Amino acid sequence: MSDLRKDPTRGHWVLVRPAGEAPPASGDCPFCPGSESRTPPEIVAYRKDGSAPDGPGWSVRVVPEIDPYFSVEREVGRVGVGLYDKVPPRGATELIIEGPEHDLTPARMDEARWEQVLWMYRDRLRDLKKDPAIRDILITRRYKKPGSRITHPYSRVVAVPVIFDDVRRQLIQCREYYEYKRRCVFCDIIRQEVADEERVIRLTPHFVALVPYAARSPYEAWILPRQHACAFEQALTPDAAADLAALLRGHFRTLASLPGDPSFEMVLYTAPNQAAKLLPGEWSSIAEDFHWHLEITPSPDRLSQIGGIHVNDLPPEEAARRLREAWA
Amino acid sequence: MSDLRKDPTRGHWVLVRPAGEAPPASGDCPFCPGSESRTPPEIVAYRKDGSAPDGPGWSVRVVPEIDPYFSVEREVGRVGVGLYDKVPPRGATELIIEGPEHDLTPARMDEARWEQVLWMYRDRLRDLKKDPAIRDILITRRYKKPGSRITHPYSRVVAVPVIFDDVRRQLIQCREYYEYKRRCVFCDIIRQEVADEERVIRLTPHFVALVPYAARSPYEAWILPRQHACAFEQALTPDAAADLAALLRGHFRTLASLPGDPSFEMVLYTAPNQAAKLLPGEWSSIAEDFHWHLEITPSPDRLSQIGGIHVNDLPPEEAARRLREAWA
Repeated sequence: MSDLRKDPTRGHWVLVRPAGEAPPASGDCPFCPGSESRTPPEIVAYRKDGSAPDGPGWSVRVVPEIDPYFSVEREVGRVGVGLYDKVPPRGATELIIEGPEHDLTPARMDEARWEQVLWMYRDRLRDLKKDPAIRDILITRRYKKPGSRITHPYSRVVAVPVIFDDVRRQLIQCREYYEYKRRCVFCDIIRQEVADEERVIRLTPHFVALVPYAARSPYEAWILPRQHACAFEQALTPDAAADLAALLRGHFRTLASLPGDPSFEMVLYTAPNQAAKLLPGEWSSIAEDFHWHLEITPSPDRLSQIGGIHVNDLPPEEAARRLREAWA
Repeated sequence: MSDLRKDPTRGHWVLVRPAGEAPPASGDCPFCPGSESRTPPEIVAYRKDGSAPDGPGWSVRVVPEIDPYFSVEREVGRVGVGLYDKVPPRGATELIIEGPEHDLTPARMDEARWEQVLWMYRDRLRDLKKDPAIRDILITRRYKKPGSRITHPYSRVVAVPVIFDDVRRQLIQCREYYEYKRRCVFCDIIRQEVADEERVIRLTPHFVALVPYAARSPYEAWILPRQHACAFEQALTPDAAADLAALLRGHFRTLASLPGDPSFEMVLYTAPNQAAKLLPGEWSSIAEDFHWHLEITPSPDRLSQIGGIHVNDLPPEEAARRLREAWA
């Protein structure tokens, strides 16, 4: 039984989720064409030849994650546990399989492929935001050197019934800046960085790729749309998609050429679901003060948090019991 | 040249600090008795026999860290960089060498030793808080399995000119709770957990050790003083110190008995420096709403952040330059 638990001293959320069964080891990849029956039924796919769902013929295919962190079947609603808060992990965890080729990497994906992936990001965001129980969605793309369990290229969509901790911090900070300046902080950053040039990696008609002023790790990079918009899924145009695809291709090729071919994680930050019930005044100025963008950071090998939501596979009650017993 | 830089979109601080020279490798430990000349001059030591500073005869010895993250020589003052903020990393980084024995581990330190270490924590906090340029101090104790560079047991004191991001989040959350309830959230947690028992590891006259409701990782544990106080260095009494020493000894022996003898980090959270200039009303209710405590969490092997301040050893300008050059 999973719980989404709120820590009352820091305000962060933790997904407490007892470790599930590991999927059986298998020599062949469940994401390759011909193995469609080994995933849950597909949610949607781009198929150019009118091929049937759950068979070959797709170029991008979306499936629910097996043993998902969040899923739609669960009930909605906050529950108090004494002074604590918990929420059932209602939401969705989907995998966007980026192509039929098993060994494709972000550095070798061509622009047409990236464009398709970006349109699928848009489609999934639009569809999931129809559910008012979903408050926030992040799309992440991890790259690990060959050797990890599944190397077939995919992005992960995680839709949750709370605001991601990391997003909430941005929203609060952006709103404070906006209330003081009446300008979007990201727009001001773009203006300053483009003029300054020192931290700019690449400037294109629609985007700027830069290393942020307070980068948390070497080679952290942000891709910011030069035109203000709070939501990726509303703002993507064919021109912008082509421009972004070329930028992603170039950036990932660059990363792959760095010493050690570093692992990384790309996160798409877009506005929370404005169709969800919000607290009064909660994000009233979100359209003006938030600015969708991508962040690409070197990533640890083990997934222990998503957007600031920590994932803990040992329930605290069980940990305490084991520690009490081990004390003697 | 190090900078402490603030990210305007999340509000976090990053210490940008070009990688220093690694200390020369050496077969013998600079923290062992007889090697005192290999550290910077000691700040203070407990010496029972009146032995001279920087020679043997000590039981606990405090030295500045070589190549410190923060140091007192630097100038004070915030500087704007366009819309960004930076602060010189004025402060202190000190190592509390916990005993002359090279191979001592937290699991094998006896209660008398822990008591001495706790009193030294208090002494350093009291002394450093005399400097109004220091706003916040964390003391951390990392344990790694044998094989890391320096195994001699020590704690690290990090005093900084800003509020640690992790502490700031606690202060904000605690104040919100207090403003609503007129009670300390930690006091309420203690009351609920002691009654509930399920997550309690150990209850002593002065403390409760528990696994927090929203533990971020397996075996995360908090040690909370049952008597409300915001600052460790004001609250420590001989009775409490003896009680806490016994609790730490038992807990670390328990951790060492877990499968794999896990690495961990202990952090002492105490109120920020109330002698520092605070913004009006900033932490006006801190004595009522903050509650000092210890948190013990499994730790990653590489130190990349302290109290939420990330440490980045590649300046963003240099990273951008390298990425621009590698783009082609």
